[in-house]
Amino acid sequence: METVVLVNGFACKDAKLVQANDFFFSGLHLMGNTSNAVGSRVTPVTVAQLPGLNTLGISMARIDFAPWGINPPHTHPRATEILTVIEGCIQVGFVTSNPENHLINKVLQKGDVFIFPKGLIHFQRNVGHGNAIAIVGLSSQNPGVITVANAVFGAKPDIPNDLLAKAFQVDVKVVDQIQSKF
Amino acid sequence: METVVLVNGFACKDAKLVQANDFFFSGLHLMGNTSNAVGSRVTPVTVAQLPGLNTLGISMARIDFAPWGINPPHTHPRATEILTVIEGCIQVGFVTSNPENHLINKVLQKGDVFIFPKGLIHFQRNVGHGNAIAIVGLSSQNPGVITVANAVFGAKPDIPNDLLAKAFQVDVKVVDQIQSKF
Amino acid sequence: METVVLVNGFACKDAKLVQANDFFFSGLHLMGNTSNAVGSRVTPVTVAQLPGLNTLGISMARIDFAPWGINPPHTHPRATEILTVIEGCIQVGFVTSNPENHLINKVLQKGDVFIFPKGLIHFQRNVGHGNAIAIVGLSSQNPGVITVANAVFGAKPDIPNDLLAKAFQVDVKVVDQIQSKF
Amino acid sequence: METVVLVNGFACKDAKLVQANDFFFSGLHLMGNTSNAVGSRVTPVTVAQLPGLNTLGISMARIDFAPWGINPPHTHPRATEILTVIEGCIQVGFVTSNPENHLINKVLQKGDVFIFPKGLIHFQRNVGHGNAIAIVGLSSQNPGVITVANAVFGAKPDIPNDLLAKAFQVDVKVVDQIQSKF
Amino acid sequence: METVVLVNGFACKDAKLVQANDFFFSGLHLMGNTSNAVGSRVTPVTVAQLPGLNTLGISMARIDFAPWGINPPHTHPRATEILTVIEGCIQVGFVTSNPENHLINKVLQKGDVFIFPKGLIHFQRNVGHGNAIAIVGLSSQNPGVITVANAVFGAKPDIPNDLLAKAFQVDVKVVDQIQSKF
Amino acid sequence: METVVLVNGFACKDAKLVQANDFFFSGLHLMGNTSNAVGSRVTPVTVAQLPGLNTLGISMARIDFAPWGINPPHTHPRATEILTVIEGCIQVGFVTSNPENHLINKVLQKGDVFIFPKGLIHFQRNVGHGNAIAIVGLSSQNPGVITVANAVFGAKPDIPNDLLAKAFQVDVKVVDQIQSKF
Repeated sequence: METVVLVNGFACKDAKLVQANDFFFSGLHLMGNTSNAVGSRVTPVTVAQLPGLNTLGISMARIDFAPWGINPPHTHPRATEILTVIEGCIQVGFVTSNPENHLINKVLQKGDVFIFPKGLIHFQRNVGHGNAIAIVGLSSQNPGVITVANAVFGAKPDIPNDLLAKAFQVDVKVVDQIQSKF
Repeated sequence: METVVLVNGFACKDAKLVQANDFFFSGLHLMGNTSNAVGSRVTPVTVAQLPGLNTLGISMARIDFAPWGINPPHTHPRATEILTVIEGCIQVGFVTSNPENHLINKVLQKGDVFIFPKGLIHFQRNVGHGNAIAIVGLSSQNPGVITVANAVFGAKPDIPNDLLAKAFQVDVKVVDQIQSKF
Repeated sequence: METVVLVNGFACKDAKLVQANDFFFSGLHLMGNTSNAVGSRVTPVTVAQLPGLNTLGISMARIDFAPWGINPPHTHPRATEILTVIEGCIQVGFVTSNPENHLINKVLQKGDVFIFPKGLIHFQRNVGHGNAIAIVGLSSQNPGVITVANAVFGAKPDIPNDLLAKAFQVDVKVVDQIQSKF
Repeated sequence: METVVLVNGFACKDAKLVQANDFFFSGLHLMGNTSNAVGSRVTPVTVAQLPGLNTLGISMARIDFAPWGINPPHTHPRATEILTVIEGCIQVGFVTSNPENHLINKVLQKGDVFIFPKGLIHFQRNVGHGNAIAIVGLSSQNPGVITVANAVFGAKPDIPNDLLAKAFQVDVKVVDQIQSKF
Repeated sequence: METVVLVNGFACKDAKLVQANDFFFSGLHLMGNTSNAVGSRVTPVTVAQLPGLNTLGISMARIDFAPWGINPPHTHPRATEILTVIEGCIQVGFVTSNPENHLINKVLQKGDVFIFPKGLIHFQRNVGHGNAIAIVGLSSQNPGVITVANAVFGAKPDIPNDLLAKAFQVDVKVVDQIQSKF
Repeated sequence: METVVLVNGFACKDAKLVQANDFFFSGLHLMGNTSNAVGSRVTPVTVAQLPGLNTLGISMARIDFAPWGINPPHTHPRATEILTVIEGCIQVGFVTSNPENHLINKVLQKGDVFIFPKGLIHFQRNVGHGNAIAIVGLSSQNPGVITVANAVFGAKPDIPNDLLAKAFQVDVKVVDQIQSKF
């Protein structure tokens, strides 16, 4: 009987049996499908796609943006992100924590690099005329993603609507309307 | 001339000069002022209030809730939180990361304990008839707090309203209205 | 056949199967039984009581003190402790490491907070007239406890009595007498 | 008088004064100059080029290869590397530690991703007909680079030639000849 | 004006100015003076003696024992210790944490190696006929030492004697007598 | 059925079943066999020889040198090394990373201590008239060893000889000759 041992939730392999394919992933040259509500697509290469990354403290992703596509506000609970623009023109930003909540933002051109510190809410959007592409590095093999709108208004089951109404200072009907979209 | 050296942004003291007051804070027995829009108040004891916590990896806070007060959805980018109810009845919840976005929630009574894992969006609210009080421990001397509504709709300057409209799938007017509150 | 995988010696659960109860513990409102030689009782909430704490870097405990009860000198080999007084009046102290061995101590009232840095020998005692209660946070899910008197004079088997006689600069008979109590 | 405090050897900035440019670097779209002995050029974006990376645990680089250019055997003493091919065809490899010294290697095409675990000796070379470009992420803001040939045969002052002769099992004259090149 | 920056409380040096002497210490071949109450002497090589160890996570020490000398029960709050016997015959032991308090002990001969896990109370004593010598490695550049007897009975000011009497289950007079020795 | 769980690739044991032998290794007093091409022998005490070291962050080794024996240039990808000379006279050195590649070196006598920072290429050689012995501590239970010559010229399969020829700026025939030795 074989027992697969999980460290950090992923399988480990005997060091003597590792092969090149354990460290290999293919497909970051392919454009992601951006035909969705936000006009963007993330193609991740984390420990979920490439088990050989386990314990190595890094991962990578490609982000595609349709014209005016956005990567909506989100956080990575376990990673800093460093991004470079491969093609197009991308506005990026993150918001500092309480109490300042400063928006630190910039419009990036091809070859520009930007950092999103660990755990902060950040976003990107295509502000050019064609498609845009970014490659990012993340400081964890398992960075996690929390899309704010989905986690807050699309949780299953719902976060109570009156609580969200108070938190966002809107009418409960507005909350119901947003929740119905997610 | 005295040079104050900052490690992690806070002053360090010569180990031979430390006194009991360097490890001491007073006031967690006092009810926080909950006369505000959310009906709650956090009284933190982190490295900002108690410099002796620097490098020690822990902090504490008291949270007061008016009847039906809420501690709105927020994250701590650098800490797990463990909470115990000192008085009252508090509903607590957190949302798991993408793609599940499961709401893990529970109504807590006096003496109950609950955990909010590092970096996840979570909230609390008073669901009893009187005031409620919680004491929490946090796994960092500098946990940080990001109140989701404030960071997203109250950033200074504003996150572009059309981006938020797409992210939350609402009309730009709804975004403008929410942003005007923060 | 089910295989329970132990990371840090405790079971891990598939992230998709977690439920609110995995993050929940009940009973910190209950007074611990202080009818013992030291007149105090610790009610811990560590990974041993709440497996969901595994890898999360924090734990909590309630400490009850009968009038003049003590929590005898001890260390946590893997955690800093932060304490707040919920009820009563508690003298607390820790001793800095060699060569200074300074006693840093203070009498705490309700609402006061004190820190015991990682690995240092510390103690608490009730110096008020009634019972006393403290809530503490610890910077590890598995902080460990070493009660100095028990580890030194109550080890099984005994640490050689002549060695302890030299270490504590007392007669071997005194060591024998103390060892007989533990 | 201004005192610049160095943590990890680099300046830290007051969190309230940070600006977008503190998180920004420009120029990764530019081809590096590969007119050198090895036919490759690394353009790094580490804490040395972008001080805002300090403490954030990640960095990035672009590597350009002339046709048949190589990035000679080297290690990063403090980082794992994840690489993706932006253009061209690149053979990559790393050698496992003693006693196996297995060469794990693969020819990568555009869009392929490969991992070089922390501290292991690795190399890349252009095996296509035109130029090649790679973007890499590194799991430290200060990964360090040790080019094996330069460190061993180009140290200043020289490592004793008889020692190297024994280590590489060659005549001292061969060592002298190699040392004269570096 | 020169500003010495302290990281972890010790001076850091510009990496370009480091010299061999920054990584060098002399004197571990010299027998320590064991003419003292416990008949042993530790010669440490930590960051306090060798500043170049800062941030490097290791230190070393030599321990000399007169015949029947002891290294009394102590802990290192920040380090595991690995010991090898250079000369003589040494009994070593450590006590596991609560509630077991098992004594794990062994008599070591020349060339034997033993481990004392981080933060646990441990001791050594010469059980041979001549002097004994050990060399130890410690998993921190600043391991710290807490000699239990000195910290508990020799703190300045004293830990209250009635508290220690309860903790060690002895008469207050016995505590007074022990405290007078330290 | 017994399931052996591997954490970091090595077996963990139930804390209640540990015995003194789990923390014990014997044999560092024995001279290693130096009848080999480099005239030295390392006797390691890492988690591979002593499983009880797992997770404890330290290991130890003895190094024997025949007269004029060398420990050829190598790195430990996961550890700093601290060395003390037990017998003889040993020249030690390490090379700083790019771009300086400074050789930091020193001749050590009995009782001298030297540090080799994590991941840097370093070497030792006997420069006295008799045998030489060193004891070293390493800041990881699993430090790893990469002997540069073996990893570069003795990899299985070979690193392509034309690539090495370019890297070391020698003729391909010289590379072939060196590779044939390993």
